[in-house]
Amino acid sequence: MTQRIYLDWNATAPIRPEARGAALAALDAAGNPSSVHAEGRTARRLVEEAREQVAALVGAEARNVVFTSGGTEANMLALAPSTAGGAHALLVSDIEHPSVLAGGRFPAEAVERMPVNPGGQIELPALAARLGQAGERVLVSLMLANNESGVVQPVLEAAHLVHEAGAWLHVDAVQAIGKIPCDINALGADLMSLSGHKIGAPKGVGALIRRDSELSLGDPLVKGGGQERGRRAGTENVAGIAGFGAAAEAVRKGLVAERARMVALRDRLEAKLSTASPAVVIFGAGTERLPNTTLFALPGIKAETAIIAFDLRGVAVSSGSACSSGKVQPSHVLAAMGVPPGLARGAIRVSLGPTTTEADVDGFIEAWICTAGALLKESRGIAA
Amino acid sequence: MTQRIYLDWNATAPIRPEARGAALAALDAAGNPSSVHAEGRTARRLVEEAREQVAALVGAEARNVVFTSGGTEANMLALAPSTAGGAHALLVSDIEHPSVLAGGRFPAEAVERMPVNPGGQIELPALAARLGQAGERVLVSLMLANNESGVVQPVLEAAHLVHEAGAWLHVDAVQAIGKIPCDINALGADLMSLSGHKIGAPKGVGALIRRDSELSLGDPLVKGGGQERGRRAGTENVAGIAGFGAAAEAVRKGLVAERARMVALRDRLEAKLSTASPAVVIFGAGTERLPNTTLFALPGIKAETAIIAFDLRGVAVSSGSACSSGKVQPSHVLAAMGVPPGLARGAIRVSLGPTTTEADVDGFIEAWICTAGALLKESRGIAA
Repeated sequence: MTQRIYLDWNATAPIRPEARGAALAALDAAGNPSSVHAEGRTARRLVEEAREQVAALVGAEARNVVFTSGGTEANMLALAPSTAGGAHALLVSDIEHPSVLAGGRFPAEAVERMPVNPGGQIELPALAARLGQAGERVLVSLMLANNESGVVQPVLEAAHLVHEAGAWLHVDAVQAIGKIPCDINALGADLMSLSGHKIGAPKGVGALIRRDSELSLGDPLVKGGGQERGRRAGTENVAGIAGFGAAAEAVRKGLVAERARMVALRDRLEAKLSTASPAVVIFGAGTERLPNTTLFALPGIKAETAIIAFDLRGVAVSSGSACSSGKVQPSHVLAAMGVPPGLARGAIRVSLGPTTTEADVDGFIEAWICTAGALLKESRGIAA
Repeated sequence: MTQRIYLDWNATAPIRPEARGAALAALDAAGNPSSVHAEGRTARRLVEEAREQVAALVGAEARNVVFTSGGTEANMLALAPSTAGGAHALLVSDIEHPSVLAGGRFPAEAVERMPVNPGGQIELPALAARLGQAGERVLVSLMLANNESGVVQPVLEAAHLVHEAGAWLHVDAVQAIGKIPCDINALGADLMSLSGHKIGAPKGVGALIRRDSELSLGDPLVKGGGQERGRRAGTENVAGIAGFGAAAEAVRKGLVAERARMVALRDRLEAKLSTASPAVVIFGAGTERLPNTTLFALPGIKAETAIIAFDLRGVAVSSGSACSSGKVQPSHVLAAMGVPPGLARGAIRVSLGPTTTEADVDGFIEAWICTAGALLKESRGIAA
């Protein structure tokens, strides 16, 4: 079997060696972090070291990190009417992750959507107008970078508007972390969600982080024991947490170099793609994007078919996002950007990562040329 | 450093070799189970194989297993007013785990406690009387075995009462699983919570299991993507789940032999303990208990001091339960059994597991004789 080319890092990153080692060592630590004996204290130390490492990645204090089972749970924990002393409404952008669009613990009628512009960024004037309305206390949730398009959101500007209005800002940084700087203070986020597996930690661990320990986190989502200082009950996923910490440290140290390398690879990919298929549309190309993400479509090609063809050629890419039902669904992100449904159905996401090489990019382009050629011929044949 | 003796298996079990191997293999599986490409399908297969294995351990159908981040989350998912088509009240025994006592998603005023008898079992007549009251639809939550005393609850009898009254029964089998049979049909449980790490899987994974796929699970606790057939959003903890599956299979195959071995070790321990300290009180000794658990106290000895002394001698035991705050708190279980607070403060829990040997038990007894001698001398000195 030939070597496969994995270009779906936004869905999940293969585990980093540092994270693998830390997780494995933690699997072998016998104790429960809540136990007072030596075995328990060893497990506790692993959790607290990881807390420092994750906090450092976003410039937060360790005591303001709550470990969760992933980014989705972190979003559920953050988005509650009891957060920050009480919020009556939740404002989210149209392009948030399903776990944010679902509104967390807010009732459906308290969740309001904010539009994005054709470049894929939230419409700040619309946000300002909504925040300017007198009345209830508001929580705003805005992702730092979109998982499908890679478009980076104007979080700093949004934070100014939000704070001027006396509201609070939650930032879903799940897809941005490890790819661009995510300092919680520099961004002005009050709360930030992270996921471990997007940066090469094991799947099943994440964190909700507060900028300020004065900010009330509200009601716990998972209640029972006093773990995580009473904010998240249940025996800790020690191996996952230790892996998350190790991945966070590796990412923090390598971010600058990795980002430059990623941009070069991405630019190579997009240049070759446009040369091979001049009609290709790269979504969000005019806007600031993550250095690793290319979302594109070629009129006449359906993503569903293309992805299967890529897979058979040994290349793992995706349509808009890893769809949890196993079916390819139309992208709410592209719809919000005003992309016509026909073109949106062709959207293919290529996302690079730390072990991606130029050879991988070139391999993808080769596969694309064959795939696109065959599929276009087929679609013309059917049309004829 | 001499070999330590780990006798705190009810807090958490050291990882089983089968679970370690499966978790490690899963850490190396790059894909997201929701991705359609080969990497995604490989990860999906690991999750679905584990679902079969966990289902088999409790005689359930795989499609009725929802993976969670642990026993606590499984309890939170089960204990909701929307479960089973709607419940107005939640009845729990006085000795449930904190995650059940907290009432899940029921409002505090809808949670009612049922007393236990001095032997540590729920008072069935009290449950029958409460269920006999006309009125609202009720969900009952009863643990299969208590985590502190090891006392096995009359779940089958409770299930009859519950079902006769048209109510529903949730069974927290977290501490019982792997130690006694836990067939969901034989027990008559409608819902059952499990935790992986109590049977040697990684910490941070559990499951909520339905007996009947017709039973509505109500509102998801964690919302967003469509994972777990829409019942629990978020990228799956694939390594934890794979480890859970492997541990479940190992436990299922070894249960009968392991149980007999455990009873013999426990009886040896209790016989030697009573010989060494005839005044020792073994809680729940007259009732059916888990084969691996001994909860005892000796008047004049405080658990807090004894546990530290044991730890210094290389023996890991605990007071009633792994206390999540790191402090030793009075046991609500012993209080419910009518044990005077003075004696309850001396409660030490010794819990055995698959790798426990006779030498471990004898080592514990040796440590006990030294510890008890020294502490009693000290307490008499202070008293004098």
